[in-house]
Amino acid sequence: MKLERYKNSLDYSYALGISLVIEVLTQRPKDVLAVYYSSNFDDGEGKEKINALCAKLHITPILSDKVFHLVSEKENVYTIAVFKKFKNPLKNGNQIVLVNPSNAGNLGTIVRASLGFGLNNIAIIRPSADVFDPKAIRSSMGAVFKLNFSYFNSFEEYRMLFKSNTPYPFMLQSNTPLKDAKFKEPYALIFGNEATGLDRSYLEYESIIIPHSKEIDSLNLPIACSIAMYAATKDKF
Amino acid sequence: MKLERYKNSLDYSYALGISLVIEVLTQRPKDVLAVYYSSNFDDGEGKEKINALCAKLHITPILSDKVFHLVSEKENVYTIAVFKKFKNPLKNGNQIVLVNPSNAGNLGTIVRASLGFGLNNIAIIRPSADVFDPKAIRSSMGAVFKLNFSYFNSFEEYRMLFKSNTPYPFMLQSNTPLKDAKFKEPYALIFGNEATGLDRSYLEYESIIIPHSKEIDSLNLPIACSIAMYAATKDKF
Repeated sequence: MKLERYKNSLDYSYALGISLVIEVLTQRPKDVLAVYYSSNFDDGEGKEKINALCAKLHITPILSDKVFHLVSEKENVYTIAVFKKFKNPLKNGNQIVLVNPSNAGNLGTIVRASLGFGLNNIAIIRPSADVFDPKAIRSSMGAVFKLNFSYFNSFEEYRMLFKSNTPYPFMLQSNTPLKDAKFKEPYALIFGNEATGLDRSYLEYESIIIPHSKEIDSLNLPIACSIAMYAATKDKF
Repeated sequence: MKLERYKNSLDYSYALGISLVIEVLTQRPKDVLAVYYSSNFDDGEGKEKINALCAKLHITPILSDKVFHLVSEKENVYTIAVFKKFKNPLKNGNQIVLVNPSNAGNLGTIVRASLGFGLNNIAIIRPSADVFDPKAIRSSMGAVFKLNFSYFNSFEEYRMLFKSNTPYPFMLQSNTPLKDAKFKEPYALIFGNEATGLDRSYLEYESIIIPHSKEIDSLNLPIACSIAMYAATKDKF
């Protein structure tokens, strides 16, 4: 298998480092195409665990340093799994809608928090960062492997399919503070791009603001999403 | 001035990129030691603004590419300000206590969110990441320049000075969910290290848990802090 530096158009991606390799072998065993070990990968608990998982799946880890130079920017990565990108489409029920998220690290952080709040059911409106970007996988700490998600070319396209979800766009122009919001299930919590937020057309829905001091322009996107997810689910956990 | 690659022991640090250079020139004008322009820094609104701020402060920007190779890992940084590390000690009132935070990016993200919730008054217990690390400054988006903060060698050392603050440690071992917590002012919201959290000794105080699904081990630190800060201040904004 000739591997390339990661890009969106590849039909495979990389899980970097011991914990993510264990996660993908555990969560998506059938999608793992290969496991690589660098010559610096010392024996230890992590390696034993990966050896055992690989044996069970009839995967023979490949000893090679080449792929590490190609794929990893961090020096302390000693094992890599190559996996086939999978589909795990958005389901009915409460959903998160991310409109044009641009940063893969942020996207992964949101995916992880969404799993923490039982809201790992995400619609992503293009153009957007890529959930399979190794940076997103890393910041998700493997939560990407448990994510239900679908991409859409526009909010309208998403809306056509999930008409019964009540949309709650989070916007600085809103007059309803989060503490007063009531979420009618199934809901869709909607968040805009890091720099530009949501445009005014979303004000037609029951928009919500997370009030904050004038000292900052806005909360960062994963933090705004997480506060909203906490508030929407706080009576469930 | 002979500049070095950033390290904790230096008595100066770097603000990288147009917005952070503008922030430090605006917020900490007397602490700015020098401003550098790379030969790739094109004319435009950002450069005009920095030129104007520098003129007002009698600073002559230095054209040099050397410092950029030394200091910045990102290629798209065309201006750098060197500034003297400053003291802006922790004040009485509501406080955040970070016990051994280890990641500079996380620390900066928390500093920014704390400014958003009017809680930019942070005690940092050593060993810890460094608020003046250029990575912390970047992820704080300049909020570090408005932060009141002090370092302490132990929680006890902090506690001796701020006995009237009610401590609320956030811990997975707690039985009080955040939604039921009442915060008595002045309070201290206390958070542990990214990997290890707070040790059981903190259970002697009124500990609080942010409940989440079993699918994840814990919320990431800036997200846990931000949810807590939101909950503690939601009736103020």
